[in-house]
Amino acid sequence: MRKNVISTKGAYISLGVSVVGKKENDGPLGGSFDIVDPTDSFGMPTWEQSEQEMQRIALGELLRRAGRPPEEFGLLLGGDLQNQCTASAYGLLQYGIPYLGLYGACSTSAEGLLIAAMAVSGGFVSRAAAVTSSHNCTCERIHRNPIEYGGQRTPTAQWTVTGAGAFLVDGRGDVEICEVCPGIPIEMGVKDTANMGAAMAPAALSTIERYLMSSGRRMSDFDAIYTGDLGFEGGSILEELLLADGYTPDGRLKDCGKLIYDRDTQDVHSGGSGCGCSAVVLASYILPRLVSGRERDVLFIATGAMMSPDTIKQGKAIPAVAHLLRLRAEGGM
Amino acid sequence: MRKNVISTKGAYISLGVSVVGKKENDGPLGGSFDIVDPTDSFGMPTWEQSEQEMQRIALGELLRRAGRPPEEFGLLLGGDLQNQCTASAYGLLQYGIPYLGLYGACSTSAEGLLIAAMAVSGGFVSRAAAVTSSHNCTCERIHRNPIEYGGQRTPTAQWTVTGAGAFLVDGRGDVEICEVCPGIPIEMGVKDTANMGAAMAPAALSTIERYLMSSGRRMSDFDAIYTGDLGFEGGSILEELLLADGYTPDGRLKDCGKLIYDRDTQDVHSGGSGCGCSAVVLASYILPRLVSGRERDVLFIATGAMMSPDTIKQGKAIPAVAHLLRLRAEGGM
Repeated sequence: MRKNVISTKGAYISLGVSVVGKKENDGPLGGSFDIVDPTDSFGMPTWEQSEQEMQRIALGELLRRAGRPPEEFGLLLGGDLQNQCTASAYGLLQYGIPYLGLYGACSTSAEGLLIAAMAVSGGFVSRAAAVTSSHNCTCERIHRNPIEYGGQRTPTAQWTVTGAGAFLVDGRGDVEICEVCPGIPIEMGVKDTANMGAAMAPAALSTIERYLMSSGRRMSDFDAIYTGDLGFEGGSILEELLLADGYTPDGRLKDCGKLIYDRDTQDVHSGGSGCGCSAVVLASYILPRLVSGRERDVLFIATGAMMSPDTIKQGKAIPAVAHLLRLRAEGGM
Repeated sequence: MRKNVISTKGAYISLGVSVVGKKENDGPLGGSFDIVDPTDSFGMPTWEQSEQEMQRIALGELLRRAGRPPEEFGLLLGGDLQNQCTASAYGLLQYGIPYLGLYGACSTSAEGLLIAAMAVSGGFVSRAAAVTSSHNCTCERIHRNPIEYGGQRTPTAQWTVTGAGAFLVDGRGDVEICEVCPGIPIEMGVKDTANMGAAMAPAALSTIERYLMSSGRRMSDFDAIYTGDLGFEGGSILEELLLADGYTPDGRLKDCGKLIYDRDTQDVHSGGSGCGCSAVVLASYILPRLVSGRERDVLFIATGAMMSPDTIKQGKAIPAVAHLLRLRAEGGM
């Protein structure tokens, strides 16, 4: 019936670029990001424009490092958390690349790479870029309170990452997107937007289980299984759910939302979140580990919580989705 | 360098379903829609939920007519105009199909079909569905005023269509999506959200010209060239721009936003708009004309205006995009 595992052989992430703000660079991955603005403003007068500018800078830096003009790109996949996804639509406008706008909430990093991988693997385009971002000040204003309000945060709340990631997908490179598994949305009744980890963990479970069952592979076949931004709360829930279903993660589960901040010193409560979280950790931490050979075969599962302030006010729970990419270092088996 | 025309041979729209409200069924296409609710509410207590319900009904009807369970669908492409695209995320949740959320504003109908066509043509999935919607009352609340406010509308304003369209894309059918041309976003300084036709016409021009120049085809090779929702204002601008560039449309230009309402009797000013506009006209008018052989080879170019209320308040102009599909009746040359 349905192919749960889609082969995208021949599509490679040949380059990744990360752009972040101060808090991200103060964390455990500090120093490994490509571009940092300690003011978080990127020279812009509004936070929305700051986020647009982050995407503009990220794609510009990707083109510069790749040594490729925009004309050589057949597709640009972009998405973010601003209403009407304007960080991407405005931020990427100047490059003049055929553009498909996405909304996958915080799963957008994997969604863009998944579509880019199909487009390249299928020979529809020879080169694509995928860009996404989040900004703490735009996201908090939309989903919770403007930061100027100084609202108290609950222990399960996550800290929206100020960051943008841009990726080049083409026919050769060090890291192959050899398989993808697009996620099925799951809604388990969680209505608390300050606990998105709980809303997203069942979606991650669903996608991981579908992938493992359909591919016949085991968790132990992979060096690491990276989730996008479940954070400490959602990460614990996922581990419990996997153990209850008979899986043995054995320390392989890692989460970009846990990796990006120091929980003890950075007051982030349950860890990082936002489209930018998994994107900048992929660019600055996961890809380098694959390129250097420290890891050879990993799963990357970005998770998204697809509510809006309106659906929450109208009493509805949070649907979540998790898209999986299998990333393999060239030369791995 | 860039392939402007992407071949998606072997991908067919084998079924389309339209769901609309009262005003749409009162117009010139009345009687040709599949499902109509004269209350526009679809039994729901809020307009946002009404729109979600339209999408749920549209996909449900598509599955019923196709005689296919959700398990036979490898991908579901969904998108709409609600903040965080919740009409799709909530409306399509129950079907449990791997889901990629899109934001292309009113170009979403073509964007979803374009990605579905690549996924099927490339052999990544054997069957995909693309669904989109708009609802007059949700869209006006987000972008202009709640309808209860009774705001006066300007002559260039368009009327957001209350409608959802769902499409089945698989390996055989009567209408092939034989080529696609994803749009490059264009921003020409238009800041008036009551004149989106003016903002979108240059994007349509750009995509049509890129397609014709790259494919070596002429406008006269096609029975009709359908734009999504330029309406009367944007449609006139597009025709002027094409003539100025030396093209001769010769009556081939049609627009879904002009076709769906009667301008003289329905008080719609510049015509219809919204993701649902091009989707329901494609399902109820264009596809039947291709299936019946009245037309054999057409271009379908859905246009989207990608601003948000915030970007407009912050003084920015409206970026627009137009995605093109070449639709050919099976048996055509």
